Amino acid sequence: MSEQHFQIKSGIPLERGGYLASPTIAYHTYGNPNNPVVWVCHALTANSDVFDWWAGLFGPDAPFNPRDYYIVCANILGSCYGTAGPLSQNPESGEPYYHDFPVVTIRDMVAAHEALRNHLNIKEIHLLLGGSLGGQQALEWAILQPTIIRNLALIATNARHSAWGIAFNEAQRMAIEADGTWHRRFGQAGDAGMRAARATALLSYRHYSTYSEAQTDDRPVLENYKAQTYQQYQGEKLSRRFNAFSYYRLTQAMDSHHVGRSRGDIEIVLESLQVPTLVVGISTDVLFPLSEQVFLAKHIPGAVFKEIHSSFGHDGFLIETEKLGLLLDEFLAAASAELHETNATIAA
Amino acid sequence: MSEQHFQIKSGIPLERGGYLASPTIAYHTYGNPNNPVVWVCHALTANSDVFDWWAGLFGPDAPFNPRDYYIVCANILGSCYGTAGPLSQNPESGEPYYHDFPVVTIRDMVAAHEALRNHLNIKEIHLLLGGSLGGQQALEWAILQPTIIRNLALIATNARHSAWGIAFNEAQRMAIEADGTWHRRFGQAGDAGMRAARATALLSYRHYSTYSEAQTDDRPVLENYKAQTYQQYQGEKLSRRFNAFSYYRLTQAMDSHHVGRSRGDIEIVLESLQVPTLVVGISTDVLFPLSEQVFLAKHIPGAVFKEIHSSFGHDGFLIETEKLGLLLDEFLAAASAELHETNATIAA
Repeated sequence: MSEQHFQIKSGIPLERGGYLASPTIAYHTYGNPNNPVVWVCHALTANSDVFDWWAGLFGPDAPFNPRDYYIVCANILGSCYGTAGPLSQNPESGEPYYHDFPVVTIRDMVAAHEALRNHLNIKEIHLLLGGSLGGQQALEWAILQPTIIRNLALIATNARHSAWGIAFNEAQRMAIEADGTWHRRFGQAGDAGMRAARATALLSYRHYSTYSEAQTDDRPVLENYKAQTYQQYQGEKLSRRFNAFSYYRLTQAMDSHHVGRSRGDIEIVLESLQVPTLVVGISTDVLFPLSEQVFLAKHIPGAVFKEIHSSFGHDGFLIETEKLGLLLDEFLAAASAELHETNATIAA
Repeated sequence: MSEQHFQIKSGIPLERGGYLASPTIAYHTYGNPNNPVVWVCHALTANSDVFDWWAGLFGPDAPFNPRDYYIVCANILGSCYGTAGPLSQNPESGEPYYHDFPVVTIRDMVAAHEALRNHLNIKEIHLLLGGSLGGQQALEWAILQPTIIRNLALIATNARHSAWGIAFNEAQRMAIEADGTWHRRFGQAGDAGMRAARATALLSYRHYSTYSEAQTDDRPVLENYKAQTYQQYQGEKLSRRFNAFSYYRLTQAMDSHHVGRSRGDIEIVLESLQVPTLVVGISTDVLFPLSEQVFLAKHIPGAVFKEIHSSFGHDGFLIETEKLGLLLDEFLAAASAELHETNATIAA
């Protein structure tokens, strides 16, 4: 399915104050709207084309396919893949927002998802899932709208963004700020800084062993180390498809993640969640370590915790699709069996 | 003891080619030259005043004190604490080197240490030690001059710099390169980039738990996160005492570390080492993980491996001085007992 667009005509009031007037939301849907709905929340630099970036889990021949499910994924607020972001036109000025695009939170992103859900007339989400920043959205959404979500899968994510995660993001924003072009108003401003930021981010997405295995020089050299050119390559790769403005704002949104904000203790907020939940962690995740998923599973009533053994670090959530597919199948089958049992009890 | 200076009048031929004409070496000595010599190799941004940065291990009342030992520490080539570096005067131009300061290697640093040792007329080093980049120098020196070194202590270091370590350094150099001032010829060029680099480096020196414990906000906030301002503070702190030129060159020197270069297999090089060696690793070290010290101890004949349990990550080597002092005491006592035993056998 090709990208579609929906304009939230009423606008979105933002958690930090202010208002986003009539933002556009880009989204993909796949399959028949009468099928059970699987809604995917995407991570930092992804887009709404989940068949492209999560192939293996989503696609014509994948566990989640359009024959069996109605699959929905929306590009998040502040991004640059069709949804309103810093390079979109500011209705007030008629120019792109650039630095004037407001700081949004995970809850603002969820408000946009909710508006789209109403537009698509979806009454029930059979499975809501996301990894990393996507998991943060899924968790917030489940807290805000528990009656609509039947099953929740939180992958390599957390209940609040950690000091460690915020420090990683800040180091990256400092690289963007160090870029002499960053204060200027054009799409490529801060690009060299963003490339450096991406090189740092990659270290948090991978692991010592990932680099050892793939980026070690075969023989001793004194320049152009494999790991060095790899970092440059990854920075350039992102530069061809992203911009520093969106990068800056989306890392700020990630920093804001805290399910307890204006609600109370994190534990109590999680304990109030009434949605059957699967929590998955990656054994070598440096950025969202297992302890964070153990914490989620400990406090969400009845939640199932599963660990995926992988040497890919945080990026394992994008790569280990076969293992993830099996875990999700198992989880949905168990949830369905329990539901039948409950219905049988009620019938009896 | 105050800082002293020694000029290597004959110059230093560099491993990558070229020549450093009459570089100055800044150093500190403490105690009586007739005491057993303890030589300290310092890490990336430190200086020769080991009583200042390794207090607890070195000082008037520390395990290594000037009553019992003759303590020596020299500022490394490429640094900015008195030894020749990018902000030193280039004899060819009469101006500071800036970008023209050559890329040096760990072996070049060791060549400068050797010149100073000869100048100080030191025939025997009772204990040579260093952590991180300092350990890389100590190991190289022990390989190059095994007969002079009686005991070797390698702390939180490795036999070759890892792909992971090189990737961390490259992400930091990319931040310096992104700084619009970096191409200019003045002492503060690239400073904002270096501050971002330091913020990234800090993540490799610490650990998730270090940040969780010390940098978590007490209550939910939406800006000025504690971890965020901490990163900025650490960048500014380095900016007041260092410069981007030295930072850039010293990280390149670290990348070059590979004891097998021009020698053969790393394992065989380590197996040829005839110096009693203590290898220490920090349990939570992200940058030089324990596996690297286990590897060193496995291949250096008779080496003793000790793990320090600490939540401080790589920085634990600077912080856990009490534990380090005990391990070094124990190591030196055992080495001395073995030596007496050997002498007794010879006498009998």
